[in-house]
Amino acid sequence: MLELPHVDLALLRGVLRTFLAEELRASGLTGYVVGLSGGVDSAVAAALAAEAVGRECVHCLALPGPSSNPESLEHARLVADALSLTLDVVPIAASCEALATALDAGRDRLRLGNIMARVRMIALFDRARASGLLVLGTSNKSEILLGYSTLFGDSASSVNPLGDVWKTSIFPLARALAVPEAVVAKPPSADLWAGQTDAGELGFDYLEADPVLYWHHEHGMDRDTLVAGGFAARLVDAVLLAYRRSRFKWRPTVVARVSTSCVNVDRILPRNPEP
Amino acid sequence: MLELPHVDLALLRGVLRTFLAEELRASGLTGYVVGLSGGVDSAVAAALAAEAVGRECVHCLALPGPSSNPESLEHARLVADALSLTLDVVPIAASCEALATALDAGRDRLRLGNIMARVRMIALFDRARASGLLVLGTSNKSEILLGYSTLFGDSASSVNPLGDVWKTSIFPLARALAVPEAVVAKPPSADLWAGQTDAGELGFDYLEADPVLYWHHEHGMDRDTLVAGGFAARLVDAVLLAYRRSRFKWRPTVVARVSTSCVNVDRILPRNPEP
Repeated sequence: MLELPHVDLALLRGVLRTFLAEELRASGLTGYVVGLSGGVDSAVAAALAAEAVGRECVHCLALPGPSSNPESLEHARLVADALSLTLDVVPIAASCEALATALDAGRDRLRLGNIMARVRMIALFDRARASGLLVLGTSNKSEILLGYSTLFGDSASSVNPLGDVWKTSIFPLARALAVPEAVVAKPPSADLWAGQTDAGELGFDYLEADPVLYWHHEHGMDRDTLVAGGFAARLVDAVLLAYRRSRFKWRPTVVARVSTSCVNVDRILPRNPEP
Repeated sequence: MLELPHVDLALLRGVLRTFLAEELRASGLTGYVVGLSGGVDSAVAAALAAEAVGRECVHCLALPGPSSNPESLEHARLVADALSLTLDVVPIAASCEALATALDAGRDRLRLGNIMARVRMIALFDRARASGLLVLGTSNKSEILLGYSTLFGDSASSVNPLGDVWKTSIFPLARALAVPEAVVAKPPSADLWAGQTDAGELGFDYLEADPVLYWHHEHGMDRDTLVAGGFAARLVDAVLLAYRRSRFKWRPTVVARVSTSCVNVDRILPRNPEP
């Protein structure tokens, strides 16, 4: 049976805590700012950051958009309360609507969703700049590999503890970190329109997709081998289609290389300033 | 004398043309969208794209903000006319102001400038999604190495022909591509507020900075060697300070690596789908 490898949750939690403490120290800044969506990923990221750098150094924003489920804001408050974190609410509905009008986006849900996700990015990086903070990333590995995110929107951050963590591991991690059960147990949703769920849009849920992604991405197992290994053909085809289509998001800007010192091609330089 | 190496402009132009044609072909999309700022970089990028894929496949947007110089829009029109490209004007002032109010950015020029640059990114990627286009990047190598750009704002694009091209080469390239002289000859400006110029903010101009950057970045020449080589100490110190401070922009999102298949760390995968 093709499964995800076992994850030592206590070890994972410790590694991520050390990572977040070290990245903040190296940056010379004073804390993290995170957008609490009311979902489990941002709750886990916030809880890890609070463990790593202290809860007084983690600033939460709730950024309700024009079509956000009111429950999302309630859940963001629930998370902030459970973790004893301060939460500022910054409504972005008016900004999103002004932009959608200027761009003539009509009722195109995908375009409106991208606008909303990117306006949230603007709000988080603005707060980071105003208060000397790093933007805490909340995209997990499953989401990244499936491309289920907005480029330069929710996928944009300064430091992301979850980008190499399968969604399958996020749930037990959330419970270990005392994230409220209402947040852990609800169906994952990007909350870009009423009733949206990740599984409804993708056609499968993350617990099903993760082992397919793992054996394909990490071990190069092809479609037919995955099906022969016991995965439903429909699941494999849907997962691999999303995986292939998401590639442009993994390398968002391709630069024409015309020297031997192209940034991020020839030269990967230290990200943080020397002490 | 420490100088920039000679650039064969005709060769550079040909390489960039081939790059843009090939990236569009591989993406399966139908053209490029570019924001014409009225400045020389976006004019050169647009002209190269028009050469590469045909002018009917290059869509220009002018995105005047609340504090843009009216001359910028005139210059954008001048460029579009000279290159026979269509230009849509999408005013973003109302959106930027709604956002600045929601974020309580006051009169902080840096925060307002970042908001404006990122709203432009939203407009370009929205148009790209709506019309099946790639966003054409316009950041040049000098700007990237000096960090003179907004992360996830003007630095964000799908495909950037200029990211490895020194600003020093942009000017003759512009003239070779018949970019109007008014655009080539004016002082470079991010146009985020009235009277802003890059040189005024950075404390030096690109023609001075480029050889310092080249010998430091490409050949690892340190401060004292650069000064001994003939550069003014004040110039070298200012350039190296901007260079060091910009590092966080070169690797915008740091991900905690907890597997052997971390995207963009362990696995750099083809960006474009298989044909």
